[in-house]
Amino acid sequence: MDERYDIAIIGSGPAGLSAALNAKIRKKKFIIFGSKEISTKLTRAEKINNYLGFYGKSGAEIRDEFMNHLKAMDISITEERINNIYSMGEHFALMANEKMYEATSVILATGVNFGKPFKGEEKLLGKGVGYCATCDAPLYKNKVVTIIAYQKKEEAEANFLATIASKVYYIPMYKEEVEVDPAIEVINDTLVEIVGDDRVNKLILKNQEIETDGVFILRESVSPGQLVPGLKMDGNHVEVDRKMATNLDGCFAAGDIVGVPYQYIKSAGEGNIAALSAVAYVDQQKMK
Amino acid sequence: MDERYDIAIIGSGPAGLSAALNAKIRKKKFIIFGSKEISTKLTRAEKINNYLGFYGKSGAEIRDEFMNHLKAMDISITEERINNIYSMGEHFALMANEKMYEATSVILATGVNFGKPFKGEEKLLGKGVGYCATCDAPLYKNKVVTIIAYQKKEEAEANFLATIASKVYYIPMYKEEVEVDPAIEVINDTLVEIVGDDRVNKLILKNQEIETDGVFILRESVSPGQLVPGLKMDGNHVEVDRKMATNLDGCFAAGDIVGVPYQYIKSAGEGNIAALSAVAYVDQQKMK
Ligand SMILES: Cc1cc2nc3c(=O)[nH]c(=O)nc-3n(C[C@H](O)[C@H](O)[C@H](O)COP(=O)(O)OP(=O)(O)OC[C@H]3O[C@@H](n4cnc5c(N)ncnc54)[C@H](O)[C@@H]3O)c2cc1C
Ligand SMILES: Cc1cc2nc3c(=O)[nH]c(=O)nc-3n(C[C@H](O)[C@H](O)[C@H](O)COP(=O)(O)OP(=O)(O)OC[C@H]3O[C@@H](n4cnc5c(N)ncnc54)[C@H](O)[C@@H]3O)c2cc1C
Repeated sequence: MDERYDIAIIGSGPAGLSAALNAKIRKKKFIIFGSKEISTKLTRAEKINNYLGFYGKSGAEIRDEFMNHLKAMDISITEERINNIYSMGEHFALMANEKMYEATSVILATGVNFGKPFKGEEKLLGKGVGYCATCDAPLYKNKVVTIIAYQKKEEAEANFLATIASKVYYIPMYKEEVEVDPAIEVINDTLVEIVGDDRVNKLILKNQEIETDGVFILRESVSPGQLVPGLKMDGNHVEVDRKMATNLDGCFAAGDIVGVPYQYIKSAGEGNIAALSAVAYVDQQKMK
Repeated sequence: MDERYDIAIIGSGPAGLSAALNAKIRKKKFIIFGSKEISTKLTRAEKINNYLGFYGKSGAEIRDEFMNHLKAMDISITEERINNIYSMGEHFALMANEKMYEATSVILATGVNFGKPFKGEEKLLGKGVGYCATCDAPLYKNKVVTIIAYQKKEEAEANFLATIASKVYYIPMYKEEVEVDPAIEVINDTLVEIVGDDRVNKLILKNQEIETDGVFILRESVSPGQLVPGLKMDGNHVEVDRKMATNLDGCFAAGDIVGVPYQYIKSAGEGNIAALSAVAYVDQQKMK
């Protein structure tokens, strides 16, 4: 077993970062998962004028200010995607691709996916549609698999799958150059529908169709209900109270994930609250 | 009648300022009341490390960043204390010392008073204890009045009262030099108890007692219930939902006033939400 953290923060957008600052100040043992680039939703913004204290800065410039802040406080982001979080009563088990982490409390700050699910995605979920390639790779031994990847870092997943599957199709949804194992077939096209009765057998793309036994859709974030089984939702968002507590003891949430308006400083403010609530929860658990 | 604003923001701390940025970006006709110095609670902080984006800055330095932001967006603070806000159905009437303002919606962001009421204060409220000297001045014609002032700007209130009352005692609770009308008696002492049966007749200070017909306690903020009659409270805080809406249609609240944790970025995040909710409310009213 690995060491147990007091607080695990999932997500490195404004909500997660703000939570991390407060966990650090309160001297808790914490870990924050996400991307060293912080948040593409931040980086992509051309100009941000409604984050009090910064005027006329681009998202990338504000990201740099956030990174300086983290650095000054000696906080570093663990670049690991968390695929599942299980409440184990006294603690949470967090499943990353190749590792498990444990924490007394959890703060969900994974943002939202603005995209709708693909046609057929929900129907065939678990029947050939998956979200974690390394987790489910063994199922595709000598089979044909397709990866729809929203981030360059998923190339590692594709390379790993290529060592197991008989054939891997790779559909990049990002702009950076694709650098994958030459055995992988890169398809520059857009998914329209996932087809199959009991199981996935075909993908309809804009310009072609491909036969496949499975498809992994690797978005920047997975839906919260999928991430944390048993989590109570309010529509597409995690239901929280004003302390940012979810229905699961010790599990808090902040940022876009808990609802509109989707805004930076709203997310950061909620991260602040969630961290202080988690700190109080952890202290209380220790008194037991 | 004065022009009617879409949104009136009461308070110039992080919650009010953040609301103002968003009202401006959304092109609403708004006014923000408070202090040009922003918030003494901000200015007094020695070092702030948990406002994402700023590390190791003093409160005064962050205040300057906030002021630059306002200036760049051409937002200016109206230095006026709002004493009462009445919901008039279609709009709100805001009473300042010598003026009335009108607004379709209101955002309360006045922060909290950390101090407890003085002994006798609640019992004798309206029976010689008051919070707005200029409003109630006529009651003290040829009488003795005492002012407990928490901010230097209250000296103007004292000077005005001195033109009406027979005697004015002035007890400054701030550190700056006191510069009042020579007719006013400045007492450097601390109030312990307000005494009287039906009405105030005496103040017990640490080192002396003074006879007085009335006492004005001019704190930095008044309690929300006192500010807005009919406002639903949750203990000492204004009750709001996740959209920052209070029980009064068109009246929103944000920051310390709505509850713990008392924190800058939490307040700013809530100001952001309150502004967007007020914008939606105003738009809806205009459609009617
Ligand atoms: C182009 C654009 C412009 C915008 N402009 C503005 C603006 O001007 N003003 C404004 O206030 N808002 C703006 N927004 C909205 C703003 O970006 C969001 O409200 C904000 O980023 C939400 O913060 P968050 O912390 O909740 O989530 P996000 O910023 O989305 O961050 C979530 C992070 O979690 C990581 N993550 C997700 N799942 C996992 C997992 N399972 N394991 C590990 N890490 C994970 C992601 O990689 C990401 O880094 C804009 C958004 C876009 C897209
Ligand atoms: C010494 C000190 C250090 C702190 N350090 C930190 C810290 O490190 N990190 C952190 O996150 N928080 C800190 N805080 C808490 C933080 O100051 C508050 O949470 C924050 O200022 C609340 O913002 P607000 O906008 O709700 O209200 P405030 O900042 O209190 O602002 C309210 C404003 O409204 C004005 N106002 C009130 N009533 C009226 C009226 N009737 N008419 C017109 N204007 C009115 C006031 O003059 C004031 O300017 C600290 C507080 C103190 C006192």
